[in-house]
Parts: sequence; C-alpha cells; structure tokens
Amino acid sequence: MATIKDIASYCNVAVSTVSRVLNNHPDVSADTREKVLEAARRLHYVPNNSARDLALQQTDSIGLVVRGAENPFFMPIIRAVEKSCEEKGYTMVLHQISADADEVEEGARLVTSKRLKGLILLGGRYDYTHEDASAFGAPFVCCTYTNHFGDLDLDAYSSVSIDDKAEACRAVKMLIDKGHTKIAILLDAARDRSVSERRFRGYCEALAEAGIPLDEGLVCETVDDDMESALERIESLIVERPDITAIFAITDTLAIAAMKAVDNAGRSIPSDISIISIGGIAMSLCTTPTLTTLAQPQALIGEKAVEILVDVLEKAAPNSHIRLETTLRPGGTVGQVHSGDLA
Amino acid sequence: MATIKDIASYCNVAVSTVSRVLNNHPDVSADTREKVLEAARRLHYVPNNSARDLALQQTDSIGLVVRGAENPFFMPIIRAVEKSCEEKGYTMVLHQISADADEVEEGARLVTSKRLKGLILLGGRYDYTHEDASAFGAPFVCCTYTNHFGDLDLDAYSSVSIDDKAEACRAVKMLIDKGHTKIAILLDAARDRSVSERRFRGYCEALAEAGIPLDEGLVCETVDDDMESALERIESLIVERPDITAIFAITDTLAIAAMKAVDNAGRSIPSDISIISIGGIAMSLCTTPTLTTLAQPQALIGEKAVEILVDVLEKAAPNSHIRLETTLRPGGTVGQVHSGDLA
Repeated sequence: MATIKDIASYCNVAVSTVSRVLNNHPDVSADTREKVLEAARRLHYVPNNSARDLALQQTDSIGLVVRGAENPFFMPIIRAVEKSCEEKGYTMVLHQISADADEVEEGARLVTSKRLKGLILLGGRYDYTHEDASAFGAPFVCCTYTNHFGDLDLDAYSSVSIDDKAEACRAVKMLIDKGHTKIAILLDAARDRSVSERRFRGYCEALAEAGIPLDEGLVCETVDDDMESALERIESLIVERPDITAIFAITDTLAIAAMKAVDNAGRSIPSDISIISIGGIAMSLCTTPTLTTLAQPQALIGEKAVEILVDVLEKAAPNSHIRLETTLRPGGTVGQVHSGDLA
Repeated sequence: MATIKDIASYCNVAVSTVSRVLNNHPDVSADTREKVLEAARRLHYVPNNSARDLALQQTDSIGLVVRGAENPFFMPIIRAVEKSCEEKGYTMVLHQISADADEVEEGARLVTSKRLKGLILLGGRYDYTHEDASAFGAPFVCCTYTNHFGDLDLDAYSSVSIDDKAEACRAVKMLIDKGHTKIAILLDAARDRSVSERRFRGYCEALAEAGIPLDEGLVCETVDDDMESALERIESLIVERPDITAIFAITDTLAIAAMKAVDNAGRSIPSDISIISIGGIAMSLCTTPTLTTLAQPQALIGEKAVEILVDVLEKAAPNSHIRLETTLRPGGTVGQVHSGDLA
C-alpha cells in the first residue's frame, strides 16, 4: 500500500506538501494539488489517520444482527444505531439474516470473525439459555425484544423494547371498546416464543378481561417477511371466517397485507372490518384509510441500545433494561362494529 | 481475552488438543471435548482463525454508503451486497446518509476512517468530477446510478443500474398508449442532476414522440425520503391541476404517496387518475389497487456491484458498467383515460 512518502517521492515534492493536499489545506498551488491527487490515485493511496487508529482498529466494532432483513420497521432503528455508533467512536458491522435464521449462531460467528466488542440484536428469540448468552462471547443488547421466555438473569444481558404484552392488550382493548368481539389476530409464524407470543398473550388478556372467549379459529399465523404469502394466508382467513369484524396485526406490514386482503374479499375498512397494529412505519401513513397503529419510538430504540452497550463496554456499567412506550397514531382503520350496517 | 493456551492450562490438556476440539477434529474423546468447550465458554474465548486473518484484517472491508437511508427500495439491495461480500470474504461496513447529504464527502471519510479497500455507493449524484472520483481514494461502484452528467471516463468508475431514461420513457409510453396526455411526473427534489433528471428526460422523450407538449405545471418536485411532505405536495398538485389523468412517479414510494393523495382528493384510481412507477418494492404489492410498476432486479443489482468491485480489487480487472432491465409488474393502477366517464 502506498504511503504519503511514496506520493511525495513520485511527485518530487515535500511530504508536508502532500499532507496539505490530502487534508484539503488551501495553501497549495492548483498544479501541485492536481499532481499530488493524480499520484495518490495512481498509487492507490489509502490514508492512515494516525497510528492510534491502527491500534484501536481491532476493538472498535459493534455488530448489528438484523433478523428479518426486509422489515421496513427496522430501517430507522438501523440508521439510529449506526449514527450513535459513529458518535461514540465505533464502527457498526451490519449482518442481516432471514427471520427463520438463528441469531445466536450468526451473532456468535460475527463476534468471532469480525472481532467485535459487543453485539446488538435487532429482532430475535425471547428464550435464550445461559449457553446462548455465553455463545455470543461479548456483551449484547436485545433490541426490540427481551428474554422473557428464557432463563437468563437480568444482569446477563441488556434490552430495549416496548412492553409487547401490555401494548398488544391496549390495541385489542381499543377494538373491544368499539364493540368488536370477533377479533382476529395476525401473528408471525417464524417467531414462536418471541414477539408473536408476547403480543398473543396481550390479545388473550384483553379478551379475557372483556369476557370474550378465545376462538382458535381467529388466530392466524403468517410470515411477516414475505408479503405475498402473508396476503394469501389472510385472504383464506377472511373467506373462512366471514364473522370477523376486526383484526389486530402484530406489525404494520401484516396490517397492510390485511388491508389488501380485506379489499380483495370485496369488504370495506373500517365499515366491515377494523384493523389496528403495532409499528409506526412511514408507509402506513399512506394506506387508504390511514392505518391506525401504536407507533414505536424507532430512532430512540436504536439510540438507547447503543448507549447501554457502550456503557457496558467502556464504563463497566451493569447490563440494563429499558421499556419504551408506544404512541397511538390515529388513522381511519378502526370503527364501531358493523357501522356499515347501521349507516 | 483468553487464548487457546489459557484454555489448555485451565483444562490441563495440550494446546494441540484444545486446537483439535475448537477445529472440530474427530480424534478427541467426548469428555475432553466437553471439558474444553466448557472452558472456552467460561473464559469467553474468542477464536483467532489464524495469524493470516489478523494480517488480512486491515484490508478486508468494503464500504456501502446508502443515500436515502429509509428508502425501502434499497433494503433487498443492501442485503444482497452484504451476502455477496461475505461470500467473497469481505466485511461490509454500512454507512447511511440522508438523501441530501454528499456521498462523496461521506464516502471518502469512510474509506479513510474504516480503511476500506473499496466502496459501493447506493444512490448518488450523476455528476461526479475527476476530483470527486479521486476523493474516494479507492475503487468505487455507483450502484443504481451512473455518472451520466459528470466528466469521468468510463474506466474511472464502475456502475450497475437500469437505463433510467429508457425505462422512464417506457413507463410514460404505457400511459400514452392508454390515451393519456395530461400526465404529471413526480420527481425527487433532492436529486437534481441525478436519477430524477434522467427519468425526467425519459418522460420528455415519450411526450415528444407522441407530439404532446411539455407542460411545466405537471412537473412536481417532491421529497422521496419524507412521505408526509411528499403527500402534501402531491395533494396540492392534484387540487391545482384537476385536468391530470395520469401520474408517472419515479419511485414506488412516491407512487404510494400519490395513491393516498388521489384518494384524499376524492378521486379514484385508475378511473380518474392512472399511476405508474419504477421500483418493485414488496409494499407496492399490497396497495389497493396493486401498483403497476417497472420492477428493478434489486438483489441482482447488489450482487453485480460486489462482483465488479471484487474483480477490480483482486484481479486488477478494469472498471465495468452493467445495465439491467426492469420487468413490468402489472397491477391495477393504469387504465384508459377517463374510463370512469365512459362507464
């Protein structure tokens, strides 16, 4: 690799001149600047900021394993994680895996192969064992989830998430308050013992509090990261169960697929079927009607994950757990039960 | 950090035994294997693959600068780039910038600070100068765009993209073929001399070939990475110009915002207004009606970008330029002009 000295020698100028050009100082003639830049190009010069950078290099990376890589909900979180890593002097190494891949195996491999100091897992299982936790070989933060079903002590990992069960319960209660009792739930089949199960429990709690019996025929497992197959699955549900008057989708993506399925079935939203979800993606502002959703604070989730991890890495802070709240973003997809019949 | 020697000493076995266990050689007893793995876990051992890995470490990263970080169109491309980098033995370092940031400055900084071997730019200006190109300080691939308006020689950079002008022309002709003459175009205000301008020229060409004069009042500049403000802008357009019967949106995101704007204005798609775009994001399958769009081969774009760059880095291959074609994904947003009036 060419050094600044190679460029100086190639151009027959002083090393300090090369340095001024490469650092964009103004006090260099246009000719010299051009000559130096041309040489830097030809010699494929790659600048070293300082020896200190080299020393730091092996230890300044944080991995971000994203499970369900095409999930638009994750985009603002990924961006916030990267920005916060930069601000705190770390490089984020992104690794995207499909929703049915094992983030423990992939994360552990990443920590090893990329020599990471820590790991943020964006989406994952809620049931880590002690073995899983030690497999990572580095401090880690569960981002958008917790280890609710696992056996880890709270001080063995960090997490940033909403309270999935409570928020799901809140969403379903909003439907019940509008008179709905035949409420379907759209879960994500690939995430058992995970976000799906927590939100399913919130759904069950809301039903139970209202004295509505659980109807297994209204529980629909879909595939969140494949909109086409989710759409098909929801279409079947609507045909099989014409008594459905409301749908709680555990994500905005599933809610948007549900809106399409309802339309394909020739029914109207919200007069025939109401829909609510948890998410807050930009796209759900542009559905017709606008999707009613409990919006998560996406950027904040990413920022907090990095903050926790860096505190653990640099200040030997204990692991910590942050619960954030959603904000109702009112849309036009929730109405009184069968308001169409009353009109 | 624990070494292989620490594990050997902890277990009271030979270093070579530890090595055999960690490399999954079969000639170790089950007991010893268990003991070594347990120790590796307890001591938080992180394997160094070999001294060779360490030597390579400084030079195995490829940067991916994503301009317009919340653009859902980029998600499958990012995933393909990361996957291809891994397969070819590189680490992808992701850096996301807003649509109005300067990818040359950010890319150059990234190459320096992260010691990258090469750079893939996902979205960017079409008008690089020689100075821009040398600022990067490493080989680079323009991914989803070209340097059409710049003064770089073709051998100074690589690119993978569709032919923006030809594809835009194709989309607008599809509208003209259905009898439309009052065709609005939605451009991205942040991308002048860029994808917007190339696609605008395709729009102009299609109009010119059909003898339709260009009407500046139908040219609408929006902000692609902020759906709320795009929506507002398109709503104003529809109110100001009630004669519009068709819209060509340069991206699916803008098309989805346009669908919402048309609905908010109390008009119907496609009976009052037809919409077509270029993109192919998963979400546009779930609009009502389904968006008619020219779908780009997203994964292939990412794979090709890595392939070109690695060939330049490893085989001293010349820079190259790949043009890929879109595929019409028929939906329900394009109809005959004013078919509603005829019904």
